[in-house]
Amino acid sequence: MESAIPGHLTVERTRHRRVPDDYAPPYPAFVARNRTGVRQVVMAYLGLQFRGAAPGHALDELDSAFAAPDGPGHHDRASQTDPAGYTDIVSIAYWDDPGAFDRWFKSHRQGWLSDDRPADGTGRWIEVIRPMIEEFETLFNLPDRPEGVAVIAEAWSDEIQEHAYWGGMRDRIPLSQNDPMPGGGAPEVQRDGARVRVHPKQGLCLIRSGQDWADTVGDERSLYLDDVEPVLRAGMDFLRDEGRPIGCYANRYLRVLGSDGQPSDRSFGMSWWRSLDALERWSESHPTHVAIFGAAMKYLMKMGPAAKLRLYHEVSVVGPDEQYFEYLGCHDGTGLLGAGLRA
Amino acid sequence: MESAIPGHLTVERTRHRRVPDDYAPPYPAFVARNRTGVRQVVMAYLGLQFRGAAPGHALDELDSAFAAPDGPGHHDRASQTDPAGYTDIVSIAYWDDPGAFDRWFKSHRQGWLSDDRPADGTGRWIEVIRPMIEEFETLFNLPDRPEGVAVIAEAWSDEIQEHAYWGGMRDRIPLSQNDPMPGGGAPEVQRDGARVRVHPKQGLCLIRSGQDWADTVGDERSLYLDDVEPVLRAGMDFLRDEGRPIGCYANRYLRVLGSDGQPSDRSFGMSWWRSLDALERWSESHPTHVAIFGAAMKYLMKMGPAAKLRLYHEVSVVGPDEQYFEYLGCHDGTGLLGAGLRA
Repeated sequence: MESAIPGHLTVERTRHRRVPDDYAPPYPAFVARNRTGVRQVVMAYLGLQFRGAAPGHALDELDSAFAAPDGPGHHDRASQTDPAGYTDIVSIAYWDDPGAFDRWFKSHRQGWLSDDRPADGTGRWIEVIRPMIEEFETLFNLPDRPEGVAVIAEAWSDEIQEHAYWGGMRDRIPLSQNDPMPGGGAPEVQRDGARVRVHPKQGLCLIRSGQDWADTVGDERSLYLDDVEPVLRAGMDFLRDEGRPIGCYANRYLRVLGSDGQPSDRSFGMSWWRSLDALERWSESHPTHVAIFGAAMKYLMKMGPAAKLRLYHEVSVVGPDEQYFEYLGCHDGTGLLGAGLRA
Repeated sequence: MESAIPGHLTVERTRHRRVPDDYAPPYPAFVARNRTGVRQVVMAYLGLQFRGAAPGHALDELDSAFAAPDGPGHHDRASQTDPAGYTDIVSIAYWDDPGAFDRWFKSHRQGWLSDDRPADGTGRWIEVIRPMIEEFETLFNLPDRPEGVAVIAEAWSDEIQEHAYWGGMRDRIPLSQNDPMPGGGAPEVQRDGARVRVHPKQGLCLIRSGQDWADTVGDERSLYLDDVEPVLRAGMDFLRDEGRPIGCYANRYLRVLGSDGQPSDRSFGMSWWRSLDALERWSESHPTHVAIFGAAMKYLMKMGPAAKLRLYHEVSVVGPDEQYFEYLGCHDGTGLLGAGLRA
């Protein structure tokens, strides 16, 4: 067993972990290990919003952009349809070199967000954060199928100590060793016609939390789809529709698309929070997440080590200079567009 | 709103609270405030163990002792019957002057635990801790009916900040400002015929956690008795029967007795733990307590501020010199008798 915080990021603490040094988690979990040279990563969510049929050309163009020089080390794609009837197809791209991202974005931002884009009737958006290596963490129940930012990592950890207790998320983020990571005020929303920029404050927090039920069969599959997924969906809907008062600016519950563009047996929630502590409070005490936690626990108790369900998440906390939010021709409920008004 | 830690016990911190300074709990809670002159309290649990009919004289004698000089500031009485068929009637007495307790115990210990006591066929035991004022906390959902150590307190707090999150219990204990309160090794059990002394190590933790449903009527009463109590009982049974591997040395689930000796509409669990962190881990992640928490949350969500159910607890963490455990003629599963073997 080892700490979730790798040796080269371990510093003298001014803040304690929530568990004693002899704490032993009741089941294993793992984190992704980046190359020690990696100082900062970029996580970019590029959204295409439309009603009706997807304009395929837009995604083809984006794929070409990803394949161009300085493109991301990994990307995947997922979709959701919101209550207003809009579908968002979201392409998520990861870089471990912010300089490469900057060059890429300079070359390709116009392609995604140029002024003539709304002419095709779609909305376009991009939500980007660039956490320092000290500002994010990952967690996986099985160390064999990386997702998200873990795909561009170098290796898996051994079993880690800081998990299976409330506060483990914070304790896995290296910055927690000496920083309380407080949240700031409401984001500023800056409108210019159909184009909107949003500027969140310090401590903005993003969680991507996913599940992969591709390998489940029979009873386990039913248990996930019938008993766990509906509870998870209810929690995701709550955050999307009623999360503002508790500090959740936006939530999307997305189905991962395969390379053929069809829904796969993978999904994830991604939500933007005023602060890490707002996410902590919802996770550990709100009825909607207590229900998710209870359903997942019942599932894992029943299945034991034979469980084929894969679970992972990545959580980042960033400052005001490590964010970029731009929306073009999107409806008012998109992403952080409403956060400034309602938070 | 105010801190659970009163001003005269506030010191410069080396350890942080788990929540930011702007944390606002979603519902109110209150703590008992002792006179500022109180430096240490004594909590004494005196047990009478028997099968069949209760030997009334023993309790009459104990009542006389409590009424004698240097007797406790408050006592109450409760009972349970364990799976082996033994009933324990437990008298719980509180002092806010350890000197008075010492004098009282010197005069009355023999009356409760003298060598000829087993002759009446009963077992006798006493479990005492004397936490410093920095080493315990209380919590009440309504500030109008003190229980336990709160009865000898002077007043109620205003609404306090440190509750409704995992870690609030620790954050309410003044010692948490600069002490991690770690647990020690297994208790030492010292046998001398029918008499046994048990010596737990540093960080021993006691929780008394109770509920009062006397004022509930109609649907609320059914909701408590049919939906909450069975889940609570299952958790209490788990700790009693299977708690050892997770650091729970012993648990009793007791019904409070009225002045007529009959069961009242009040109950509490009292459990001994290797350490505060062992109690924290069970509370926040074990399926049996997650179920209790879920049932209680559903109850409180449904009833809202109209709920008449009263909930309280008191939690103490003590060092090896602040404990006294003695058992005479008791069966092997009594209190901490098995803790040294199984912990």
